[in-house]
Parts: sequence; C-alpha cells; structure tokens
Amino acid sequence: MKHFADQLAAAVKRTGNSVCVGLDPRAKNLPAELLAADEKSLSDLADVYTHFCNGVIDVVAPLVPIVKPQAAFFEELGPSGALALGRVIDHAHSRGLLVIVDAKRGDIGSTAEAYARAYLGHDSPWRADCLTVNPYLGDDSLTPFVDVARERGAGIFVLVKTSNPGGRLLQDVESDGRPLYSRVAEHVEGLAAANLGACGYGFVGAVVGATYSEQLVELRRAMPHTWFLVPGYGSQGGTAADVAPAFDANGLGAVVNNSRGIIFAHARPEYETVPWQSAVESATRAMIADLKSALR
Amino acid sequence: MKHFADQLAAAVKRTGNSVCVGLDPRAKNLPAELLAADEKSLSDLADVYTHFCNGVIDVVAPLVPIVKPQAAFFEELGPSGALALGRVIDHAHSRGLLVIVDAKRGDIGSTAEAYARAYLGHDSPWRADCLTVNPYLGDDSLTPFVDVARERGAGIFVLVKTSNPGGRLLQDVESDGRPLYSRVAEHVEGLAAANLGACGYGFVGAVVGATYSEQLVELRRAMPHTWFLVPGYGSQGGTAADVAPAFDANGLGAVVNNSRGIIFAHARPEYETVPWQSAVESATRAMIADLKSALR
Repeated sequence: MKHFADQLAAAVKRTGNSVCVGLDPRAKNLPAELLAADEKSLSDLADVYTHFCNGVIDVVAPLVPIVKPQAAFFEELGPSGALALGRVIDHAHSRGLLVIVDAKRGDIGSTAEAYARAYLGHDSPWRADCLTVNPYLGDDSLTPFVDVARERGAGIFVLVKTSNPGGRLLQDVESDGRPLYSRVAEHVEGLAAANLGACGYGFVGAVVGATYSEQLVELRRAMPHTWFLVPGYGSQGGTAADVAPAFDANGLGAVVNNSRGIIFAHARPEYETVPWQSAVESATRAMIADLKSALR
Repeated sequence: MKHFADQLAAAVKRTGNSVCVGLDPRAKNLPAELLAADEKSLSDLADVYTHFCNGVIDVVAPLVPIVKPQAAFFEELGPSGALALGRVIDHAHSRGLLVIVDAKRGDIGSTAEAYARAYLGHDSPWRADCLTVNPYLGDDSLTPFVDVARERGAGIFVLVKTSNPGGRLLQDVESDGRPLYSRVAEHVEGLAAANLGACGYGFVGAVVGATYSEQLVELRRAMPHTWFLVPGYGSQGGTAADVAPAFDANGLGAVVNNSRGIIFAHARPEYETVPWQSAVESATRAMIADLKSALR
C-alpha cells in the first residue's frame, strides 16, 4: 500500500537532499524570452506557465525529491490555468518527482472532502501526491482531508506556524501559557502518529516557517512523527542554519521549500549571462550544498 | 465608484430579504432526471452542474439578492469544473444576482494577491463580486485581498466564527479572557470601518455561523460596520430566531445562507411530486417568510 511519508522518505534518500522547488509562475518574473512583446491572453499565459514550469522540472528532476506548484498563480488564469496546473503535475510525475499542491484549502464535511478529492490521488483531476491545508475551521475540518489522503495513499501538510510576520496575529496568541500554533501542532502530531508509514512518519505533515528557528526546535521535539514542509528559506530570510533543527538525527523529517530563489535565479546578477535553465540548476545545486553544510 | 457593501444593501432592499442561496452541486444529491444512468466524465458532470446551478439561478433570481457557489464542488471536476464555475457566475450576473465565491482562500503577499485577482472583479477570469477568506495566516495575509477588493469594487468575507462544532478547537481558545474569534472580529471590524460605503458598512465582511446565537449577538455589537455572511441555517440546525441577532435595526447587516435546504429541496417528502425547480422556489419562499417572521 502506497504511503506518502514513505514515498517522501525514499525520494529524500535517493536524491540525498530535502529541497522542495516551489513552482510559483508569476508573469512579471519570468525570463523575458518567454514573454513575447504582444499582449497575452490568459490561455497564452497558461501555455507560457506550463512551458516554464516544465522547463524547471526538467532541470531539477534529477536533483531534488519534490516540487510544489502554488495553486494561486494558476487560478489567476482561470480555467486555462486549471488545465496548466494539471499538465505541470503530470510532467513532474513523468520525471519521477513527488508533487505537493500548495493550495491551503480548508472547509468542513463534504466540502472538505471535495477539495481533497479534487487534488489527491491518481483518481483526481490534478493527481497530486500531497496538499497543503488550513486548520482554522478546526479538527472536524481536517478529518475529511485525512480520510481521503489515507484512502488514496496521499498526504497533507497542515499550516502550523507560517513564515510571514503577520502569522503572529493568531498563531502566537497565548492561552494557558502556550501559543495557539502549539495546539495545532499537538493535533497534527496526533493525526501523524495515528497514520504512520514504515519510515516512522505519518502522511499528515506540518507547515512550519524557516523564519522562526526557535519554534522549529520546539516543534521538532513536540512532533516526532510529523514531516515538516518548511517555507521561508532564501527570499524570506531563512538560512540553512535556521532550518537545520527541522531535521531528525537521520536527516529526515523535513523538506525545505525555495520558490523565487530557484525558479527566478535568472534575475540575479551572477546568472545574467547564462540561459535561465542553467541559473535554475546552479541555484538548486547551491541550495543543496548549503543545506548539506548546515546538516553536517 | 462601485462598492460591494452598497451593492449588497441595495440588493437586500430591492428584494426585501437577506437570503443567500448556496450553490453546492453534489452529484449524489442532484435531481435524478439530470443524471442519466450511464457513467459521466468529469466534463459531462460539469455540464450537469452548470445546467442545475443555472436552473436554480433562474428560479431564485427574482426572489433573493445573492448566491454563493461553493468552489470545492467545481474544483472536484478539475478544469471542466473551473469552466463551469465561470459559466454559473456569468449566468447569475445576467439574472441580476450578486455572487460570493465561497473558496476560503488564504495566503501571503503576491500569492494572496493572485487569489484575489483570480476571483474578484470584472477583470478576473471568474468575475465574482465577493470571496470568502481564511484568516489563519494573519493580518498581512488579509491586506492583499482587501487591496484588490478595493481596487475592483468587490468584497471579501473573512472567517470569524464558523458553524461547525470543531471550529471551537482554535476559534474559541481563550486568551486574556477573550476567545480567538473575537480578535479576528476586532481586526475585521477595523478593516470594514476603514473601507465604508454609503450604507454605513464596509466591503470587508465576516463569516459568523448561525449555530452560535450568543456569539452572533456579541459580534453584531462588536462589529457595527461589518456585513455578516451567516452559514448554518437549516440543515446545520440554525433557526430564524438564531440568526435574527445578526441583523441591525434596519434589517441590514447580514445575509443568511442556505445551500442544501434550498437546492436539494426536491428530496424532501413534501416536494416529491413537483418539478425540482418548484421545490427550489417553495423552499426559497419558505425561508424568506421564516426570516421575515423572526425579524418582525
């Protein structure tokens, strides 16, 4: 039986690193050569996004275990974007990558189930391996996602502590001496522990930002069965040293996402003279080396 | 300049009621005549959803101010569902209805902006008037939604207190003597008050469940400039008496959603012998009368 936690552990071991490449195709940041001067329809732009993301995938597939398309940028293009997202996911799979759809969905009952069915598993229209989920609606809102993920051998990552400064407004509210995010963490760890794979982790993971290193230490300790998806490395200020505490003693337990820092590396002065694909490759290799040095 | 709060106030005054019809097309609950016996592709099912939702719209357009398609059920059908959602929204507009897309989106920075641009305003692929938004990522995650809504004369409803029992896990956590949802409420009221229309309400609203009548009383008092979107009437147990406190002295300030109770009224014994459209009309008229009696 397929188990997302085991698939992820195997992919991390095979590639020897825990880099997740975020596929966030923003039109204004794309390599200029992909955007002709004439006005683009949403459908044209969706084709450009597909071409760009698939190009990134071709570069990173031999290097990293997993990619994370950001649903919002595809949704911005309407139905054409929905088609493009499916094509990008299929291409990633054809190159052997795991795929997290970063859509931060959250709802209750049969509505939550519909979201889960939309994204997770080979029976779904988008066929992702994993989906990010928002916990604000509470425990009964997570259950349908967990149930569908179990049924389809897929995974979810629940937002626990996000990487943005404003996350504090709710996530850090203290009650009985503990912040709100630690309650979410406790619930998520319970779900992970109840749904373990052979690797010792569950298919229910947690999103924990790289920008709060102390909380990473605390949450790694509190959540021994929970894979972490760690955003905020690079562009948002998180360093390899900051994310090191997300890993267990065997170097498992976390994947560290980088979107802009990899896919838009062509905009950096040091990569100005090389093809954008080479910039993506160099930036990916640099991040792999950076994480390795911090985990040594 | 178009202002969502004023559009909503005008629509409520014109129709004389505050009913929001939720368009949640679940395949298994559709009138049997719409589902032929043979297996349906996702694209076939998307056509059925469009036909069904547009049929509901034709019935309710002369009666109510607003409809609320649930994004999850369309997303479950993949790209075909994305197309269908756009068609349903366009049809609702052609019949003079306002449209809230219930997608509970939430993210940060340019990602949040992409979600807002995807759904809000006539420049967007889906052209909705309003979008539901999840606040777990904090204040800076709401700003891009507010900014895009302002720019496009659209609105947002932020989840404050949801109608499901599990909502308590986070929303009711007490800190300094107040529950978490009241912090969200305070922030949302601030955004509403900073973005007022001529009607005295802002274009930033709040989702407050019908199932917690005491909290409706408390929040109506604490949020004098905030439109409420009230789920949980009917199928989830909320009564007209429960939702009455959501309204101001002029009968404005809230719209009360009903999805299953209206669109799947054909399944109720009393409507067994009439066309499903007649069941929708009767259920809508019954809810209008029920709300009126409680607001008298």
